Amino acid sequence: MSVFILLNCKTYDEGTGANAVKLAQACRDVAENSGTNIAIAPQIPDIFRVASAVDIPVYSQHIDGAGPGSHTGKVYVRSVAQAGAAGSLINHSERRMTLADIEAAAAALKANGMTSVICTNNIAATAAAAALAPDFVAIEPPELIGSGIPVSKADPGIVTGSVDAVKKINPNVKVLCGAGISKGEDLKAALDLGAEGVLLASGIVKAKDPKEALYDLVSLI
Amino acid sequence: MSVFILLNCKTYDEGTGANAVKLAQACRDVAENSGTNIAIAPQIPDIFRVASAVDIPVYSQHIDGAGPGSHTGKVYVRSVAQAGAAGSLINHSERRMTLADIEAAAAALKANGMTSVICTNNIAATAAAAALAPDFVAIEPPELIGSGIPVSKADPGIVTGSVDAVKKINPNVKVLCGAGISKGEDLKAALDLGAEGVLLASGIVKAKDPKEALYDLVSLI
Amino acid sequence: MSVFILLNCKTYDEGTGANAVKLAQACRDVAENSGTNIAIAPQIPDIFRVASAVDIPVYSQHIDGAGPGSHTGKVYVRSVAQAGAAGSLINHSERRMTLADIEAAAAALKANGMTSVICTNNIAATAAAAALAPDFVAIEPPELIGSGIPVSKADPGIVTGSVDAVKKINPNVKVLCGAGISKGEDLKAALDLGAEGVLLASGIVKAKDPKEALYDLVSLI
Amino acid sequence: MSVFILLNCKTYDEGTGANAVKLAQACRDVAENSGTNIAIAPQIPDIFRVASAVDIPVYSQHIDGAGPGSHTGKVYVRSVAQAGAAGSLINHSERRMTLADIEAAAAALKANGMTSVICTNNIAATAAAAALAPDFVAIEPPELIGSGIPVSKADPGIVTGSVDAVKKINPNVKVLCGAGISKGEDLKAALDLGAEGVLLASGIVKAKDPKEALYDLVSLI
Repeated sequence: MSVFILLNCKTYDEGTGANAVKLAQACRDVAENSGTNIAIAPQIPDIFRVASAVDIPVYSQHIDGAGPGSHTGKVYVRSVAQAGAAGSLINHSERRMTLADIEAAAAALKANGMTSVICTNNIAATAAAAALAPDFVAIEPPELIGSGIPVSKADPGIVTGSVDAVKKINPNVKVLCGAGISKGEDLKAALDLGAEGVLLASGIVKAKDPKEALYDLVSLI
Repeated sequence: MSVFILLNCKTYDEGTGANAVKLAQACRDVAENSGTNIAIAPQIPDIFRVASAVDIPVYSQHIDGAGPGSHTGKVYVRSVAQAGAAGSLINHSERRMTLADIEAAAAALKANGMTSVICTNNIAATAAAAALAPDFVAIEPPELIGSGIPVSKADPGIVTGSVDAVKKINPNVKVLCGAGISKGEDLKAALDLGAEGVLLASGIVKAKDPKEALYDLVSLI
Repeated sequence: MSVFILLNCKTYDEGTGANAVKLAQACRDVAENSGTNIAIAPQIPDIFRVASAVDIPVYSQHIDGAGPGSHTGKVYVRSVAQAGAAGSLINHSERRMTLADIEAAAAALKANGMTSVICTNNIAATAAAAALAPDFVAIEPPELIGSGIPVSKADPGIVTGSVDAVKKINPNVKVLCGAGISKGEDLKAALDLGAEGVLLASGIVKAKDPKEALYDLVSLI
Repeated sequence: MSVFILLNCKTYDEGTGANAVKLAQACRDVAENSGTNIAIAPQIPDIFRVASAVDIPVYSQHIDGAGPGSHTGKVYVRSVAQAGAAGSLINHSERRMTLADIEAAAAALKANGMTSVICTNNIAATAAAAALAPDFVAIEPPELIGSGIPVSKADPGIVTGSVDAVKKINPNVKVLCGAGISKGEDLKAALDLGAEGVLLASGIVKAKDPKEALYDLVSLI
């Protein structure tokens, strides 16, 4: 099974609009040359143009559980699907959702053949997310996000504890970890702890040379 | 001064993805043939493809007040701008925002040269919105949204009261009205009450023939 | 093990202030005379006076996950504990919470020796809630709340399915069911489906004679 | 017209439960001895016991706009009124509300003869709040809250600008200022800038001797 790397552009200017397309092209080049599985999550208005420009999987940063209807401003699963998204983050720590909406969003992605990644903040919440049977849960201690301190070093127990908790609830759910990850050694450490991939953001998006940073990231796998 | 008509696609399947482009083309044709000012607010993932396909103004259904940075899943003003949006709805009744976020979103649109439309639910809230100096406030009594009963008939006093309240606070702010509007007579009644345009949704988006419905809408102005 | 009955006063005027105390006294009388376990969840400002007036367990309708500190307006676990609450509802369908806050609130109740009741809307969300190891999960299909149609009749499968899902995840978690329950036969049907108690509201709070309605409720157990 | 001082207990343990009663007694003693107008906003579960213990005005830290009905966990105006509250904060920066809810909460307070204090974060939002005709607006730059740096020193222009903006919109609305205020000189500076009172929190609640701190606070007026 291949390691999964998901690059979150957040609302960084370096990952907005035409810059998102450039980042996606860097991801594609590194994925092709290294034989790794890299996906990108641009901002929602950028999904269409990014998905039109590259062949790697494009994810939404968020979807709402709302279906078709009178839901102005909500992020509707079929809209992101038709824009070219292959999956979506759900419940990122910067875009928390109610449990009912997380469940509805995960179910909507599954019904549309898309990949779901539910973000969580601790082991107990990770177990709860796993009970919803998403494709992935992504454990990210909020205090480490954007810190530059990799979760795999700062709190390895939260990764192994999440892996254990998830496997007990539903062994089909895969675990990603995030927060502070940007280098090859961080990714390797995450995999050694039982994660099957990582969530990244500022370490790559705001790097002087994102492509070089991505090559470093995949250098040890 | 020209009447402003803004068509909100909400998350109706009839206004999603390729259907949003078709609706936008109908709006463009009617606008061109009738010499009216029609804009469309597709879902956020559809802004880029709609704005690439038509020359009429494209609006976002929502933006967040968040700036650049660690704001996963938020709708960042520069992202919608670069996708081609000319403005945005703010605080639609189906996507209510805090006062602080409404203010930040209106300021962000102004700073980016975009048009702001703050939606409100009653006369007092309309006065408050006008104090933020947006381009437009749009009064929509929530109980009439999607009802098929035009606000201009059901509650004309809320339109005239909103116009009066806004003019006292800031005479540069224009008033739209919405909720239940779909026909030429509804638009004419709204203008007679002092509104300078209307917000529309299901009456057009879910019409058997949206273009015909739009021609009817503009037939009396 | 004894059946658990929890009466939610919501914001009904019939359950506000002095009326909440009267309802609590009715609950106490019926509990004592019937040997049943009845608790009451008044509004948060009413917890202190209700807990001062009766000996039955008093629950909060909500707590936030927030700890001590700069959290104006949040419902802090130690404040409701010191006011006399023995437990709290969490994530009621009328007061949905993020997954992170549900987890924090359940943990805060446990750390303070209080009873947690996480409300959920379907079987998948119930399984997720059970993974947080609360004392109770309470399944309430939102469309039946306040309907007068008991969930035990309208959708018995959601009760049995919730019981099964919870027992797989954590057999120590007990299942309540709610929505539309007010009569003795509704409670009996809920128990027959595997629930260990019920959540009630309007059927008792707005009854002409709440005490009589409570006697009917417990008449078949 | 007398200066208005409102002490917000937030969720500090030093202001919870029995500690809230002690703080309220200190406020009462200082108010009586100095002839000043001091009110206290304990946590919502503490309103009843604080209002039962002292004669100074007791405020809620928050109310929701919700009326009577199916609104579990919401803070209903009549419940806080019957618990003894004389008014409420609305939209504190730690408990932001939608514009529609702010308007509904302010109207609910007015309809119940209670005093409304809408908190705001900048001059534009203050103007918007004033358009809702509350009794007070309280300007608190979020970045200064809990900083120990008084707004009257760090950003005097936001106070004078708020006073000017409010007087243009509705001269009956009074302006409070908050954030970082704890000493007599801070209060005097606020009044010199045109404020008619202050919002306080940690500087008093977490002081070694809150009563002494309050005496210092009122020493220059």
